[in-house]
Amino acid sequence: MDRRSFFQKAGLATAGAAMATPAIAQVSQKVVWRMASYFSRSFETIYAGAEDIARRVAEATDGAFEIQVKAPGDAVPAERVLDAVRAGTVEAAFAPTSEFWEIEPTYALATALPFGLNPRMANAWFYQGNGKALLSEFFASQGLYGLPAGNAGTQMGGWFRKDIGTLDDLKGLKFRISGIAAKVLEKIGASPQKLAIDDVYSALERNQIDAARHLGPLDDAALGLYRVAKYYYYPAFWDAGPAIHALFNLEKYKALPPRYQAILEDACAAANTGMMASYDAKNPRALREIVASGTQLRPFTQDILDAAFAANNALCLELASKSPYFKKAYVDQLAFRKDAYMLTQVGDYTFDTFMVIQQRAGKL
Amino acid sequence: MDRRSFFQKAGLATAGAAMATPAIAQVSQKVVWRMASYFSRSFETIYAGAEDIARRVAEATDGAFEIQVKAPGDAVPAERVLDAVRAGTVEAAFAPTSEFWEIEPTYALATALPFGLNPRMANAWFYQGNGKALLSEFFASQGLYGLPAGNAGTQMGGWFRKDIGTLDDLKGLKFRISGIAAKVLEKIGASPQKLAIDDVYSALERNQIDAARHLGPLDDAALGLYRVAKYYYYPAFWDAGPAIHALFNLEKYKALPPRYQAILEDACAAANTGMMASYDAKNPRALREIVASGTQLRPFTQDILDAAFAANNALCLELASKSPYFKKAYVDQLAFRKDAYMLTQVGDYTFDTFMVIQQRAGKL
Repeated sequence: MDRRSFFQKAGLATAGAAMATPAIAQVSQKVVWRMASYFSRSFETIYAGAEDIARRVAEATDGAFEIQVKAPGDAVPAERVLDAVRAGTVEAAFAPTSEFWEIEPTYALATALPFGLNPRMANAWFYQGNGKALLSEFFASQGLYGLPAGNAGTQMGGWFRKDIGTLDDLKGLKFRISGIAAKVLEKIGASPQKLAIDDVYSALERNQIDAARHLGPLDDAALGLYRVAKYYYYPAFWDAGPAIHALFNLEKYKALPPRYQAILEDACAAANTGMMASYDAKNPRALREIVASGTQLRPFTQDILDAAFAANNALCLELASKSPYFKKAYVDQLAFRKDAYMLTQVGDYTFDTFMVIQQRAGKL
Repeated sequence: MDRRSFFQKAGLATAGAAMATPAIAQVSQKVVWRMASYFSRSFETIYAGAEDIARRVAEATDGAFEIQVKAPGDAVPAERVLDAVRAGTVEAAFAPTSEFWEIEPTYALATALPFGLNPRMANAWFYQGNGKALLSEFFASQGLYGLPAGNAGTQMGGWFRKDIGTLDDLKGLKFRISGIAAKVLEKIGASPQKLAIDDVYSALERNQIDAARHLGPLDDAALGLYRVAKYYYYPAFWDAGPAIHALFNLEKYKALPPRYQAILEDACAAANTGMMASYDAKNPRALREIVASGTQLRPFTQDILDAAFAANNALCLELASKSPYFKKAYVDQLAFRKDAYMLTQVGDYTFDTFMVIQQRAGKL
């Protein structure tokens, strides 16, 4: 049967039916929102995530729904973006909620718990597990609606001036690290330091701190920390799949036309995958530059990982006893993680292992 | 500074500016498209990917852009969906392009090459590497525009009636497998069989074939193949991150209003992540059911993987010599894969390895 007779037999129209349909007049509400970014423009790839959402929303509405991305200080300082979006001073924010975990520990869980879900598992839990329902319940209690809108993958463990051979080497180590990870590091002997990122370089140079974590190869290379700390450790066991959230003032979100809500949902999902893809595409070159600078790559030793794993389990139980939102989401995530790491061994992880072996053998 | 004085000082309006803005009359073209699915409704999770795109597009346009998903046979039979969308008989299709690889080998590459990119790498290559440009060039030469709109993760290697201990056990083995993977299996001694999925159960039962691959745990459990084949092998080294594509007739796509094109782009990106999340959330339970049925899980042995890896390299070189589109995309993907498997060891893979160890030790 040739193609024409097949289509005739199937009774299908061959001319574009779509062209003959009428135009519909729809009323589009002009909406102008401000999205306050926690990240400055110098975090190019993360900052671009907020701009990506704005572009997608604008294109999907012919500009009727306009989101103006504001760098820290333009609308509100970085540390106030959560307050501002909760108060409705800005309609939206783009932030790692974990930075606000001292207000409520579920803000940490929404981004990443130490030894938590990797990026793919985080998506599975949020989009198709109980994650969206559980986090939406929490966010609503805070006057927010939130969607993951970016991920950076498993981050690097940081820059160390000295080789860290064993858990003992961490004792008293002045380590620039924040959030829930700082608590875990403290429990295993380190001395966490709060320090603005702009001050890290000189603090390392002047021996005021021994180590500092920032993000991954791309953002770290830009800071030039390899000049003041020789050892670059991995992985950031506290940041396996850190989600960056688009946060919306709940009342303002509810007041949006359903069409705009749908567009926002798709734009954030696309931006979520887009940021991960962007890091994955750019990180290899940055990592090569870092290694070319003379940096020594080092994995954290097993005793450090084991101690941190145990310390984190204890910490999360403490947090669960304090916050019902955290408890519910944590228990659910634990079950999900257990299943996910069972599943991955039968397929993805086995495949990746074979390929890693090929890579090391120079066969790729 | 308390919150109120901070906001007053910052000169920010506290009332919702968005509410005061005027409505704009926009003209929306009513567009009705048909999307012919390669998969029948019995492939619930994959079929749902096409419906997911349709729902997202409808919600983002208040129904003005309507995509009617058609099961195989409703508009065109599964094996004709590519012809139909190229001819414009239907505006869109939802298919693994690899099924049409004999028309042009780049159709195989667009889905997954054996020992190719895992799902996250496939996204990175497409969205932020050269993938989109290279595949769009190829698709355009075929009268198509294509977007990844789903992924199923690393698939299972199939159901075997006998234990496959070494490469020798593959010799002459009647293995139901299609596509480029069949060529690789043939090169290492197996005897690939073409067989419709509905005939696989009885063929295994009657000893007409020795083995059959289908997809992953969720879809495989639904077929009940564990009753007729005891050994379930992994991983499908030919399907590490198989992309399911939304394919559009190029002329019809170009004729869409730019707003609808943007909405389609976001909907497909969201559906892409959504399908992966759906499989990841559902596969663990299916895998447990399969194991509970008495099925023996088995990894392919190293000699089989090594032989298949070498055979695939040779095959891809042959294909590259025949198709300039394939050659260009393949060479680009090889470089991307090499970088990606270098990068993953410094972060993601190391983290996953620690977690896999915890899972096996019963600590998750």
